[in-house]
Amino acid sequence: MSNYDQLTSHYQTIHHFNHAESMLGWDAAANMPSGGSNARSKAMAELSVHIHRLSTQPQLEEWFGNAEKEPLSTEQKASLREMKRKWQQATVVPEDLVQAQSIASSKCEHAWRTQRQENDWVGFEKNWKEVVTLSREEAKIRGEALGLTPYDAMLDKFEPGTTTASLDTLFSDVKTWLPELIEKVLVKQQSDSIIMPSGTFSTASQKALGLEVMKLLKFDFDRGRLDQSVHPFCGGVPSDVRITTRYDEKNFVQALMGIVHETGHARYEQGLPSAFAGLPVGEARSMGVHESQSLFFEMQIGRCKPFISHLSRLSADAFNAHKDPVFAEENLYKIYTQVKKGFIRVDADELTYPAHVIVRYEIERDLINGVIEHTDVPAIWDEKMKASLGISTKDNYKNGCMQDIHWTGGSFGYFPSYTLGAMYAAQYKATMTQTVDIDAAIQSGDLSPIFQWLSDNIWSQASLHTTDELIKRATGETLNAVHFRKHLEGRYL
Amino acid sequence: MSNYDQLTSHYQTIHHFNHAESMLGWDAAANMPSGGSNARSKAMAELSVHIHRLSTQPQLEEWFGNAEKEPLSTEQKASLREMKRKWQQATVVPEDLVQAQSIASSKCEHAWRTQRQENDWVGFEKNWKEVVTLSREEAKIRGEALGLTPYDAMLDKFEPGTTTASLDTLFSDVKTWLPELIEKVLVKQQSDSIIMPSGTFSTASQKALGLEVMKLLKFDFDRGRLDQSVHPFCGGVPSDVRITTRYDEKNFVQALMGIVHETGHARYEQGLPSAFAGLPVGEARSMGVHESQSLFFEMQIGRCKPFISHLSRLSADAFNAHKDPVFAEENLYKIYTQVKKGFIRVDADELTYPAHVIVRYEIERDLINGVIEHTDVPAIWDEKMKASLGISTKDNYKNGCMQDIHWTGGSFGYFPSYTLGAMYAAQYKATMTQTVDIDAAIQSGDLSPIFQWLSDNIWSQASLHTTDELIKRATGETLNAVHFRKHLEGRYL
Ligand SMILES: [Zn+2]
Ligand SMILES: [Zn+2]
Repeated sequence: MSNYDQLTSHYQTIHHFNHAESMLGWDAAANMPSGGSNARSKAMAELSVHIHRLSTQPQLEEWFGNAEKEPLSTEQKASLREMKRKWQQATVVPEDLVQAQSIASSKCEHAWRTQRQENDWVGFEKNWKEVVTLSREEAKIRGEALGLTPYDAMLDKFEPGTTTASLDTLFSDVKTWLPELIEKVLVKQQSDSIIMPSGTFSTASQKALGLEVMKLLKFDFDRGRLDQSVHPFCGGVPSDVRITTRYDEKNFVQALMGIVHETGHARYEQGLPSAFAGLPVGEARSMGVHESQSLFFEMQIGRCKPFISHLSRLSADAFNAHKDPVFAEENLYKIYTQVKKGFIRVDADELTYPAHVIVRYEIERDLINGVIEHTDVPAIWDEKMKASLGISTKDNYKNGCMQDIHWTGGSFGYFPSYTLGAMYAAQYKATMTQTVDIDAAIQSGDLSPIFQWLSDNIWSQASLHTTDELIKRATGETLNAVHFRKHLEGRYL
Repeated sequence: MSNYDQLTSHYQTIHHFNHAESMLGWDAAANMPSGGSNARSKAMAELSVHIHRLSTQPQLEEWFGNAEKEPLSTEQKASLREMKRKWQQATVVPEDLVQAQSIASSKCEHAWRTQRQENDWVGFEKNWKEVVTLSREEAKIRGEALGLTPYDAMLDKFEPGTTTASLDTLFSDVKTWLPELIEKVLVKQQSDSIIMPSGTFSTASQKALGLEVMKLLKFDFDRGRLDQSVHPFCGGVPSDVRITTRYDEKNFVQALMGIVHETGHARYEQGLPSAFAGLPVGEARSMGVHESQSLFFEMQIGRCKPFISHLSRLSADAFNAHKDPVFAEENLYKIYTQVKKGFIRVDADELTYPAHVIVRYEIERDLINGVIEHTDVPAIWDEKMKASLGISTKDNYKNGCMQDIHWTGGSFGYFPSYTLGAMYAAQYKATMTQTVDIDAAIQSGDLSPIFQWLSDNIWSQASLHTTDELIKRATGETLNAVHFRKHLEGRYL
């Protein structure tokens, strides 16, 4: 057996344990009664230790060395590159640092759940200090190994190939036009009258509606399911994708669009090429590209008028409320495109969301690179929120820098993925329009031409190319903010 | 760390992977869409290989040798004994035989699914020959290692300590009175008029009813769930027990009593002592003792008149059918105690079930010990069915020796567990009656005194004692058929 084949077989073995871990994680969120959590945590910790052991096995170094000298096809070379990337990711950080980070993160996150409610920055800061220190250490080690700046090395975990230089360019472009655009839209929407849903929308009816919408989006129910969990997510494995949502019986709009979003993630997974199943090269390209699929579904498909027309019909059917003006196309469209400035990222609309992300990006970049200290964060947050959205978070930590779970757990470098995803999605749409009559496809109820384009250009490509190559092949240009701006202006002005 | 502690930690590690395997198995039966099965099979095979590797790790031999010389408490000695039992079970059969058995069983079982429908003994016999040959080989190897006859060594896998000698005594006792008892009961029931359920019983209502009955039986919903699968079973782990059932919308009686049965298995698991969680000594004692719990719930509680009275009320509520004579106490009792001779074990009632088991026991005992050949089985089956139930299976293989999955997969030694379970259950009842007013407890709707007895005597004891000791401690005598006979005569005559 060649060393390349040996590596292939080894990474497939790892994948089988990842399969178990993924399904147990889904089960813990979707099914598990509370009494099961202690034993489950232990089982999952054991799996994770085992996966780490397999991912850092000493003979891998020799196999990689030899495999690089073996005659390989282009695809095999891509596969080798992605296996090696996983291996480097797993081996570069010393075990004792990983261990220390895990302890510090758990402690910080656990305390944060009450500290946030109590607006307790002083308490939080004490734990968070350690998380930041250890993350900086991790960033330094990764950066040295990869020849990158510390923050770029953290970005590489979620968005391989993305750099501070490129993000600075993209986001400073957005900052030149976004604040003004938001103000204009707010003025424009001032006179809009919106009828908000009222009454009870049973979980059973909402689920039935969600399943109808998933059918319209061609979710493959032979290879996946819809369930419920407190925090919606897309889990499972490509041949069996488990998406979840949370229903609010007082209002169906969020759960419904949440299902559209997760269906986008799911179809990417379901559309990955089976020829590379279980191998790193067969996985989704990055967090940003993943989000580009969910946001293509949610923003480019889900919030366009012809799709809202389907939602209007299907939801009026589901709740047997054909005469209720809430479900009128125009009203639903207004609900789903309403812009509001607010403190909270996860509640933000399409237009203000990038502002929230850019604030976080600029702060975490400087924090990891040692330009600012963790104690500086609240003041900088306040200043940046005032500049971008005109709202102050002075002394309001819980609705400011303490609102997200990401930083408490040391996930620095993740936030940009959300807005990268939105920008990728707008850029795909601009290219897709040249060959696909998108509105007509949606209107007809047969969206396959749209999905065919996504499958050809994104899903089937998995991790065969770098992100830059993937986007260039799909859209003819590297990522830029032009299409995103046009999309937002087109929809909201 | 002492070698005993090392072993303890090692078996807890194994348990974590068993946890994963068990949950993935439950998920495959209860949730998984068909497209997920290929990847799931691979993931589960990988887990099973890994568990086998851990269970046969070379240093275990030394650890066991040393641990036996270490100062241990009585409970630690029991724990060591059970760990060693697992180790011996895992190591005694050579890997190539295990491999060959797995291949032969899969082939035989796969073909059997159509061969059974087509009554194709000739086709089946060709595959089954290999399964029998390999099982005999396994039995011989196990027997030599354990100092047992071949069939006793197979029994030991499911019922440690149970021997052909003891089963011959128990079952020949049953055979002296069962056929006559069956005939008498059939005559007695001849004039019974039973109203069978008709109409539609929605899955949702049946599930709601099942959950009510599980509450009455004090199933701990904080540590378990009820779901659906094609073949009902009890899975999961003690802190999170997953039971399943299958609903027939034309008739609710089977699913309902099936839930009572699985709840018995579940409460045993939920009642195992948490102090030994994850260790062999903390597991259920044997298949027969497990079945003694499900059958205590199904036969001793579930089919007694005061419990049927609860079922009558709850099911009339669930289906909103208070005036329907189907749900009258007397009628439900007749349905649940109706005796009928039939070909099929899984459809058999409480009274004829042991006859089916004894036929299988006598045949598999002689087959594994080499007293008969596999080609002799159909004729012997026919002869024994005529002797015990007065029905012939000549040329009727599909309703004869080809009806069960057990032998096609090489599970020789399992069948006796069913009737051992029924006999244990009757013997517990006889003892329990001395200190617990069982009928009164059931009537009152608070069954805790019954469960307290089971918890004290069976659940909390896990595998601390041998089966014989366990039964003797619980009932003051070793297993005998006296109580079983009294129970059956009391209910049916
Ligand atoms: Zn998403
Ligand atoms: Zn059972």
